[in-house]
Amino acid sequence: MTHPAYSELIATWQRLHHFGHLQSIASWDRAALMPSKGNDARAAAMAEMNGLMHRMRIDPQLAKALANAEQEDLDDFQRANLREIRRDWRASNSLPEALIEAQSLATSRCEHAWRTQRPANDWPGFLANFREVLRCAREQAQRLADDTGLAPYDALMDNYEPGMAGKKVDVLFGDLLTWLPGLVRKVQDKQSKEKLLVPTGPFAKSAQHTIGLEAMKLLGFDFEAGRLDESAHPFCGGVPEDTRLTTRYRDDDFIGSLFGVIHETGHGRYEQNLPREWLGQPVGWARSAGIHESQSLSFEMQIGLSRPFVGLLAPIMARHFGAQPAFEADNLYRWLTRVQPSFIRVEADELTYPLHVILRYRIERDLIEGRVEADDIPALWDAAMMELLDVDTRGNYKNGCLQDVHWGEGLFGYFPSYTLGAMYAAQWFAAIRKATPDLDARMATGELGPVFNWLRNNIWLQASRWTTDELVTRATGSPLDAVHYRRHLEARYLG
Amino acid sequence: MTHPAYSELIATWQRLHHFGHLQSIASWDRAALMPSKGNDARAAAMAEMNGLMHRMRIDPQLAKALANAEQEDLDDFQRANLREIRRDWRASNSLPEALIEAQSLATSRCEHAWRTQRPANDWPGFLANFREVLRCAREQAQRLADDTGLAPYDALMDNYEPGMAGKKVDVLFGDLLTWLPGLVRKVQDKQSKEKLLVPTGPFAKSAQHTIGLEAMKLLGFDFEAGRLDESAHPFCGGVPEDTRLTTRYRDDDFIGSLFGVIHETGHGRYEQNLPREWLGQPVGWARSAGIHESQSLSFEMQIGLSRPFVGLLAPIMARHFGAQPAFEADNLYRWLTRVQPSFIRVEADELTYPLHVILRYRIERDLIEGRVEADDIPALWDAAMMELLDVDTRGNYKNGCLQDVHWGEGLFGYFPSYTLGAMYAAQWFAAIRKATPDLDARMATGELGPVFNWLRNNIWLQASRWTTDELVTRATGSPLDAVHYRRHLEARYLG
Repeated sequence: MTHPAYSELIATWQRLHHFGHLQSIASWDRAALMPSKGNDARAAAMAEMNGLMHRMRIDPQLAKALANAEQEDLDDFQRANLREIRRDWRASNSLPEALIEAQSLATSRCEHAWRTQRPANDWPGFLANFREVLRCAREQAQRLADDTGLAPYDALMDNYEPGMAGKKVDVLFGDLLTWLPGLVRKVQDKQSKEKLLVPTGPFAKSAQHTIGLEAMKLLGFDFEAGRLDESAHPFCGGVPEDTRLTTRYRDDDFIGSLFGVIHETGHGRYEQNLPREWLGQPVGWARSAGIHESQSLSFEMQIGLSRPFVGLLAPIMARHFGAQPAFEADNLYRWLTRVQPSFIRVEADELTYPLHVILRYRIERDLIEGRVEADDIPALWDAAMMELLDVDTRGNYKNGCLQDVHWGEGLFGYFPSYTLGAMYAAQWFAAIRKATPDLDARMATGELGPVFNWLRNNIWLQASRWTTDELVTRATGSPLDAVHYRRHLEARYLG
Repeated sequence: MTHPAYSELIATWQRLHHFGHLQSIASWDRAALMPSKGNDARAAAMAEMNGLMHRMRIDPQLAKALANAEQEDLDDFQRANLREIRRDWRASNSLPEALIEAQSLATSRCEHAWRTQRPANDWPGFLANFREVLRCAREQAQRLADDTGLAPYDALMDNYEPGMAGKKVDVLFGDLLTWLPGLVRKVQDKQSKEKLLVPTGPFAKSAQHTIGLEAMKLLGFDFEAGRLDESAHPFCGGVPEDTRLTTRYRDDDFIGSLFGVIHETGHGRYEQNLPREWLGQPVGWARSAGIHESQSLSFEMQIGLSRPFVGLLAPIMARHFGAQPAFEADNLYRWLTRVQPSFIRVEADELTYPLHVILRYRIERDLIEGRVEADDIPALWDAAMMELLDVDTRGNYKNGCLQDVHWGEGLFGYFPSYTLGAMYAAQWFAAIRKATPDLDARMATGELGPVFNWLRNNIWLQASRWTTDELVTRATGSPLDAVHYRRHLEARYLG
């Protein structure tokens, strides 16, 4: 069977794949290695490439090819690819150039100023820039909504978590709110009676790096297809064939670097195990932000924080930092799973983290749908922090509503992905434990094969072959269900 | 004044500059960091970009713009840029696609097989692939000759050393041959009576790396606009705004890594100091391969091997490797300037190195101009090695005619640049010493400013503003003259 229009599309996305490779490497290099004076030239080179790739995506010929390909005799796999091609195409074709430029300008200005405004606790300064960012985001949401038939906030969320909708998130997060705050209190009560030794530093950077590499080896990272380096903020970059993880080191704390590495290794193994033969096409890309987070959180929370894995880490720490009573495995586990409501999302423990996300979800959805204004954010933030976490953020913008840069960068609709990812991860592990009842005993000996095989077959090799709902149902027998997450948290923190 | 055709050209080369930036970083990364399994995807991405850049350069519209720009009212600077744009354009437009493809195929095959054929001493195997490489190179040379009016070999050399010609090289190298072999013998005689202590290893890689960084600091490398990393073969890559040097380490030898670093620092400072405001255009590129080598050899031979600079290096070595009698400065200098004819060009001392180059120049010119055939190479090599260096290479292909990969990669006309670079460097330093008679005394205190200022003003900031002959004459008052090279070598080795 012939399909000239579809063939034209796959040739275009194959070229985009190659150019995207060069962008990814240049971008990773900028974050991990580039000296400061290289910045302007790098920015100009990457902007040139972004321009080229954008022009390729808005070529009017593609719109025709998309329409014609729908009429061609395609098999199911090709239809799935065509669906993903259309998603990628729509992201570049739904917005007028003028909005893209205005948004780029507003978010660059807002993000850049935020770097000094946050330490200065300068909310009014941020607000002055942020109003224009919000205006652009609302216009973007409305235009995407007009184009897709989705509600405005859902249309933004669709960029990161296709198929998800505010109504579904309301149900999932609403369920969480019925039991999570109570669970936090109960766990705090329980833990307040436990004895705890805290490891004492300093912790040499070279030892932290070695421990990170050992953890990556335990977790099956393929060092012939990737690397670990250092950057200001940990991330997983590069390309599936050459996956670049980074972390950062502080000599008074090693948990940040180590669990950063474990988290990014989850992202990295997903990328490294995407199906090679589909890689040039959108059907071969990772499914969504939430599914990606479900991999990093499978590694960080489901494996990394589990008692068996902590038992594997403890002797490694003692070996490279020198023995301390605090590195005894049970103590280490108590320390790593300590629950304590606090100001900062990225430093939050597993149990309070989702409450930070729910707070942001509520505010950003109301912002986009026009029920509240930028000026209202601090009051909303203070009230929600008090309600959900019993933490007082009044006047403390830098540890309150200025702590994240997402909104300043125009990123609305992303926050739910973090907690959706944690929920997906719990659902994966419910299925894995069902298939492998003695999982904990195996993990305690370092045998993680049952986890990796399940993730490889059910998630990694599926890439974007199915919609997210289909993927979850095929993997676990049912769509996303918060009950697994609740069981996981109760088992770990009350069990 | 308006110049629409010229403006169109500079816009195109500005875009090429940006795309070239991404290629350079991807290429550096491939050599320095990329894990093995990333290779196929990287090759495909870079081939896609090469294809795009080639199509940009062969766009028929450019031929029209070039013709029209010649008629426009341009100032001298713009004319110089137009001259360099035309050079760059011609390199892509003189050859038919079929020849480019055949050449790419033949050289890839020959280079790849050479990696195992050299260690196996397999000349017949190499020859089987090399015949096609030579056929392509001859066709390339003839087509470039037809296009430029140059002789075939000169047309190839023009890619690396524009304005140079076989006839000029014959005069320069002919002069060398009247005194250099005699000088080598005289120096060997003299040195055979000198006492010499050889430093004993092993030399820790981390200490070698630190010493390399200290040497780069002494030599003014800007670490905010570049880095030092490791690769299988030392090179200077990246972009002028972000210059990436590499070296390699062996624990039984530190001279290779250190003088590799010093050499590449010369290339690197040239790149780092090209005029920022011209960088997007060919007039802002480095002048030629020979002028580039003149910078690396200024750093390696004129500075690095000088007695004052060795006096700066000696305590650094003692500090990082531990004290040894061999690190006493006079002994170190005697050791570093030891002359000994040997098989391998890249390991040759300063005095015998040009003889390796002259041998290759003779053979490659005769190959291109059809006076000899590929089959004749070993016999020609053996005879010339015996004549020039008194070294017997019969049957020893791996340390003879298989040692370099240049010809297998289709690189003909490049070898003279190495020795031209050494001659230029000697001429620069004759001028610098004239302007700064107490140069050695200053260098002995670490004051290298007079050298850097002269090179910056006369070479680096001139980029491709002038032809090579003009550049040399403006800088030193006369065109290239081998007398400075002779004086330098006699002063260093007999003085």
